[in-house]
Amino acid sequence: MRNLTEFEQAALSGEVNLSDGHPRHDLTGRQLQIIGRLSDIFFETRVQNFRDLEIRAQQSFMTGLGQYSAPVTDDRVFSVYSSSVTTMAVASFLRRHNHKAAVIHPTFDNIPDLLRDMIELVPITEQELADGDFDALLAKNVTCVFVTTPNNPTGWVLEEAAFGRLVAFAAAHRLLLCFDTSFRGFDIRTQFDGYKLLEDSEVDYLVIEDTGKLWPVAELKLSFISTSKSVRADIEHGLSDVLLSVSPFVLGVVDALARDGAEGGYSTLHRLIADNRQEVARTLNDLTEIEMPDTESRISVCRLLFPSAARAAQVHEKLLGMNVHILPCMPFHWNAPDEGGSYLRIALARDPKLIMVALDRLRAVARNSSARV
Amino acid sequence: MRNLTEFEQAALSGEVNLSDGHPRHDLTGRQLQIIGRLSDIFFETRVQNFRDLEIRAQQSFMTGLGQYSAPVTDDRVFSVYSSSVTTMAVASFLRRHNHKAAVIHPTFDNIPDLLRDMIELVPITEQELADGDFDALLAKNVTCVFVTTPNNPTGWVLEEAAFGRLVAFAAAHRLLLCFDTSFRGFDIRTQFDGYKLLEDSEVDYLVIEDTGKLWPVAELKLSFISTSKSVRADIEHGLSDVLLSVSPFVLGVVDALARDGAEGGYSTLHRLIADNRQEVARTLNDLTEIEMPDTESRISVCRLLFPSAARAAQVHEKLLGMNVHILPCMPFHWNAPDEGGSYLRIALARDPKLIMVALDRLRAVARNSSARV
Repeated sequence: MRNLTEFEQAALSGEVNLSDGHPRHDLTGRQLQIIGRLSDIFFETRVQNFRDLEIRAQQSFMTGLGQYSAPVTDDRVFSVYSSSVTTMAVASFLRRHNHKAAVIHPTFDNIPDLLRDMIELVPITEQELADGDFDALLAKNVTCVFVTTPNNPTGWVLEEAAFGRLVAFAAAHRLLLCFDTSFRGFDIRTQFDGYKLLEDSEVDYLVIEDTGKLWPVAELKLSFISTSKSVRADIEHGLSDVLLSVSPFVLGVVDALARDGAEGGYSTLHRLIADNRQEVARTLNDLTEIEMPDTESRISVCRLLFPSAARAAQVHEKLLGMNVHILPCMPFHWNAPDEGGSYLRIALARDPKLIMVALDRLRAVARNSSARV
Repeated sequence: MRNLTEFEQAALSGEVNLSDGHPRHDLTGRQLQIIGRLSDIFFETRVQNFRDLEIRAQQSFMTGLGQYSAPVTDDRVFSVYSSSVTTMAVASFLRRHNHKAAVIHPTFDNIPDLLRDMIELVPITEQELADGDFDALLAKNVTCVFVTTPNNPTGWVLEEAAFGRLVAFAAAHRLLLCFDTSFRGFDIRTQFDGYKLLEDSEVDYLVIEDTGKLWPVAELKLSFISTSKSVRADIEHGLSDVLLSVSPFVLGVVDALARDGAEGGYSTLHRLIADNRQEVARTLNDLTEIEMPDTESRISVCRLLFPSAARAAQVHEKLLGMNVHILPCMPFHWNAPDEGGSYLRIALARDPKLIMVALDRLRAVARNSSARV
């Protein structure tokens, strides 16, 4: 079976691409101003001290999302090309230390794909993480817990109380915690100062941050990996095989966009995603065979639930025939693909007009209330 | 021991950084014009078909360096963030297929570091590659040969006749050939149409191309990996876990710079490197204890040979004390570090003034002819 990225790649040149979760909506006026300054940013960052520039960009990004205690000035945050490259480096680290990881289920498939190349994985559900019942992990000899929060595709979040329980358990039992927070920018419920809890607990941790889902700037993006003192040196050494440094120019662009995000850009983004989600909900009101299961989700994708896997596959196929690309959800359920069969995923970080075009075509292929009666 | 990149990272904010092989010289007038158009390039590439854009950039780069038969339009060249990320993907591929690789010795240490995490390696020397005596490879059950050409740090090149011998041997014995040609742009002796030979022979191959060493544009760069038909699908699938796509904006920048390179930019670059190398040679004329061993090298780094490892270490240390960062060479000799002990490496892709500052300080710490008499 193709992985999710292969579905997304097929959609890149498609007419209506609601496949990938990368931001492809219009730039705001203030983002246009930043893009208009790209040459200036190039020349300004060229003469700045690299380390100063990196700290500034990391601080702008972290504080803009509430992560005031991220260990930026303690030199424990590293800049990488992308979150997938960071995940590769984490996977290598986990292999060097013979970890066995409990990985959130479901989640975007390239996370378990990259990890299971290297180490043994067991699934852990969102419910188990929320409930804080972790004793089963010890019975399975798990040494590491990998959590995507907010999670893709469900939009589920590890809220502050549950986060605290997980941190306390991991600290008590010397488990390594790995978080992928690539969608943090969409959901203020994940913008409590998680690093404060991590640092205070002295737990071993890695956090993969990502700027790549937030701003529609042609994949000019970075990932940051934050590390506890205990794993810092090993991660730094591993990353030195991957890169000398990221681009100072991209650091400058990220800094500008993160500052704009904190000054209103994120609010504008949240409104766009909420409006697009509401438009989907409105359409589903008329299409009684399809439900929207993730009522609390705020991230830039949205699942649709069909009465059966066969029906989901049929609608997916028909939409493809009308040049509308969306994602099947089986690959998210990396340990039990059938559990995802009845779901399809729509990307919401798009212009409302494109969402409307897709929804019109969805109406044409799905059964509506009157047809059902 | 620190790896080479860790030495280079320590130099990033240093006063005189002749450590890394990344281009840090002044932009030419025509490159300045391209940088002045960054915002335009952003908006132009935003509305273009991604695949058309990618093909155009790949073709500009390949044909500018003589690689007319690279399988760009046959959809067998993939774009990646950087050559190190490509090397990681290659390492994963080699592990999936249980390869044992002969890797050129010496070479930049992150290549063997990334590979030996995954598979067994044996060294092969530049001389063995040039001589075409490959029977020993079969005795060692080698299934893959990995060659950096031009090689870093020596500037050695696998010339066309030797390239042809290697390809014929590999095709006859079903060995996989991997080339890292990141420094190809500096040396026209590696700009024969290698892909013609690879394609005609039907050998299994991977070529890692890199734009990152050529233009001083703040790490706005790409790597391309070209594949034989036989390995294409597997590499494509592996890369889909790493990235959805590179940046269309960076594709546009690379396209513009590659076109400028072919129209005179590469000649200008070659003159700068040759002039800087000659300046080093002139200095060494007065410093009889130091030799310049790689008389045929044309790449953007240059080795210095000292009478002993102890003396090289001493000069390296003294230069560091004067804020001049250059590289020790032991890590290049990944299978026999001591062989590199008497060498230091200087980066040449710098402004001549910075080279002069470094050479002045080298003069101050090294023994000159008169002192020696």
